[in-house]
Amino acid sequence: MNETHITWPHKDLLDVDQLSLQDVAILLEQASHFQEINQRPVKKVPVLRGKSVVLFFAEPSTRTKVSFDVAGKRLSADTYSLGKGESSLTKGESLKDTSLTLEAMAPDVIVIRHSSSGAAQFLAERLHCGVINAGDGWHAHPTQALLDCFSLHQAWGGELAGKTLLIVGDISHSRVARSNISLLSRLGVRLRVCAPRTLLPLAVNGWPVEAHDTLDNAVRDVDAVMCLRLQLERQQAGLLPDLSEYARRFCLGPKHMELAKPGAKILHPGPMNRGLDIASALADCPQSLILDQVAAGVSMRMAILFLMATRNDGRADV
Amino acid sequence: MNETHITWPHKDLLDVDQLSLQDVAILLEQASHFQEINQRPVKKVPVLRGKSVVLFFAEPSTRTKVSFDVAGKRLSADTYSLGKGESSLTKGESLKDTSLTLEAMAPDVIVIRHSSSGAAQFLAERLHCGVINAGDGWHAHPTQALLDCFSLHQAWGGELAGKTLLIVGDISHSRVARSNISLLSRLGVRLRVCAPRTLLPLAVNGWPVEAHDTLDNAVRDVDAVMCLRLQLERQQAGLLPDLSEYARRFCLGPKHMELAKPGAKILHPGPMNRGLDIASALADCPQSLILDQVAAGVSMRMAILFLMATRNDGRADV
Amino acid sequence: MNETHITWPHKDLLDVDQLSLQDVAILLEQASHFQEINQRPVKKVPVLRGKSVVLFFAEPSTRTKVSFDVAGKRLSADTYSLGKGESSLTKGESLKDTSLTLEAMAPDVIVIRHSSSGAAQFLAERLHCGVINAGDGWHAHPTQALLDCFSLHQAWGGELAGKTLLIVGDISHSRVARSNISLLSRLGVRLRVCAPRTLLPLAVNGWPVEAHDTLDNAVRDVDAVMCLRLQLERQQAGLLPDLSEYARRFCLGPKHMELAKPGAKILHPGPMNRGLDIASALADCPQSLILDQVAAGVSMRMAILFLMATRNDGRADV
Repeated sequence: MNETHITWPHKDLLDVDQLSLQDVAILLEQASHFQEINQRPVKKVPVLRGKSVVLFFAEPSTRTKVSFDVAGKRLSADTYSLGKGESSLTKGESLKDTSLTLEAMAPDVIVIRHSSSGAAQFLAERLHCGVINAGDGWHAHPTQALLDCFSLHQAWGGELAGKTLLIVGDISHSRVARSNISLLSRLGVRLRVCAPRTLLPLAVNGWPVEAHDTLDNAVRDVDAVMCLRLQLERQQAGLLPDLSEYARRFCLGPKHMELAKPGAKILHPGPMNRGLDIASALADCPQSLILDQVAAGVSMRMAILFLMATRNDGRADV
Repeated sequence: MNETHITWPHKDLLDVDQLSLQDVAILLEQASHFQEINQRPVKKVPVLRGKSVVLFFAEPSTRTKVSFDVAGKRLSADTYSLGKGESSLTKGESLKDTSLTLEAMAPDVIVIRHSSSGAAQFLAERLHCGVINAGDGWHAHPTQALLDCFSLHQAWGGELAGKTLLIVGDISHSRVARSNISLLSRLGVRLRVCAPRTLLPLAVNGWPVEAHDTLDNAVRDVDAVMCLRLQLERQQAGLLPDLSEYARRFCLGPKHMELAKPGAKILHPGPMNRGLDIASALADCPQSLILDQVAAGVSMRMAILFLMATRNDGRADV
Repeated sequence: MNETHITWPHKDLLDVDQLSLQDVAILLEQASHFQEINQRPVKKVPVLRGKSVVLFFAEPSTRTKVSFDVAGKRLSADTYSLGKGESSLTKGESLKDTSLTLEAMAPDVIVIRHSSSGAAQFLAERLHCGVINAGDGWHAHPTQALLDCFSLHQAWGGELAGKTLLIVGDISHSRVARSNISLLSRLGVRLRVCAPRTLLPLAVNGWPVEAHDTLDNAVRDVDAVMCLRLQLERQQAGLLPDLSEYARRFCLGPKHMELAKPGAKILHPGPMNRGLDIASALADCPQSLILDQVAAGVSMRMAILFLMATRNDGRADV
């Protein structure tokens, strides 16, 4: 590997906005180096030996937490998991005090998922160690956007500019949509969104997207479709009349894909509601990148952890 | 160690039925190699460095999960624990999608415990990585049977054939009993079971066992007795009149052991109900193998993880 | 490091009473060696490679459990976490059987936190491996007292004798207070306590402390103040009339610190109730040692684990 002379400029990763196009290029390059490690019989390199990564997930999560855990351990970091239930947050300790306490144990990076928008930034401003936002409220999910970008970059042979991606589902409450739109639009991807009007944010007119409320129109000639997970509590909140009505109009099915470009790719950040977000057959079809996204997530998080945890080392000891 | 040329034929370990007698001999041999490591000051060898083992326990467990965790780490594997509460199963994701997601992170082995019979097989059919059944419903618990076999093999100086083992307790609902009967009968052990009729399966007549409902008769001249844990919810289900009546008739006590062969061994898979499954004094007596079983569990699971995780490596790099 | 010839005499660490002054000196010396490791880019040394440390926390805790986990992993030990919910204690297994089961897996050290006073001693008497008391009921919390001692030792340039420390808050129910008073009084620290009469133990007259119920008097000319966490359930138990009344009389504030010696230090074992145990401004002021205590905790627990886990090794292989 020849990344010895990279100096990564960011103490924290809070959202994709902070990244220059060159930063994104470095992350894609680094992730593709690490992807190869995940295919070896011995899936481990010593680059983060003696580094400590805290996984502080105050909201439940499987894939993101395990993905960071795998990423850290494959680079030989030590990882520490902390849930809300286990933390002193349940004893009424503030997020600030919990974070300062964790920092006093000298971790190199704290990965945080939290239900409050801005939680990661709150920490980043107070801590000397690196902070990675693994999802904060409806606000941002930068590592998901970066892994989706990496997955599409590979599927499209490195060409992102000029492609069209449609994002279908609950755009209003989706940090995944927000971070993806922000990142991919800057890389030249044309973006469309499709949702019931109650699940489209009012601000969508100011976004670099074409907004639709009919899937047949939205999907025409796209190069890829990303379905979002519908949180079932949206119906209880009165934002949806009826789940079967939603499915009839917004569940991506084979007949929609016939309107897309031939070979168009299918993504979903998971966990899927099969038959509601996406037809089950599509989830498992050859054009689906859904499991590639999971694999890309490990490689991209290895890249992020590596660059952040070694930036103060004098040199990156690869 | 001279196991360099073993090629282990099984991608998965679902039940003991799939193992040939030669496979069992290999496992016993390998477990006894690894047992020695557990007695060293430095209890760690690098044979599974860079291998990833997922511990997916959708049912609670202490001893089995910690046992696999210890086994994996002593061989230098990285282990990842996932409970039902932490997994996206609670968000309504199917077992299939959760498993495919885990597999996309490139683990070498997934160990699964699940309340549904057949869960491990369901995974094994869908995943390329190895799957170990750590208990599925009432169906099977092959690693428990293998560790019990290893423990008896050592206690009896390598001689299993011709010995008599009595299993006492809730045979109907016991995956431990099922897997042990299947394995040990093929190794020439004569088997007896003893239980109230309500806790004996209807199919018992077709099993290679002698069925009893009186402990005094059942225990006569046996070489070992394995007591099972009584799940207290059986009484609520109307299968038992009364726990004290059960204890009076089926709790193994010192006077029963006087009817067994001198020096007959005592086993229990744990956790014990002292005074209900087994008299407290017997659990701690010199003939008790109960703690040996726990130690044997670590060694046997090391053997299983080692053989499964290295089978595709070209060579087993010991 | 020159600790090669130390032979540590204690199998277990149950309370500070068991430690000679020389033992304490060895721990302080060893902790300060390890503190340097926590400031390196590569925070890991191989001294406990192949050692197994079980973290058995039957009561919830963040900082103590993570602190031991960090300490173990920085010394290259493998750590295993077990909560009450995950253990077979919830299936009605006794503490004795759970412990014997854990021991049969050949750990080197079991760290236990438990709500019953004496739980750690109960284990220590039954197990061959080392047992560390990480807090048992209201009884003792020796590693907290040792880390507080280490933190003060550093803040005071190695001089403890002749200093005065005030402990404020719920003395009656505090294992932290008990262990600190026991340790620090033997090191020549003069101790005062201050609490409402309902939260002072009846036995306080026999303790080597000066008891106060007015903070203004108690704090006069002290070199340090340690605030304790008030458990909010004390009010429900009728021991406190009213939390705001408690705060008015016992919350340490800037005006109290004006009565203490200039530069007097402030400690709190955490998690803090800001505005109830301690004024928020004081918690973050330059005299506060609160985060130093957390860092000291990692170093002191590294020292304890190191000495206990290597005592049978023939030689400490540093």
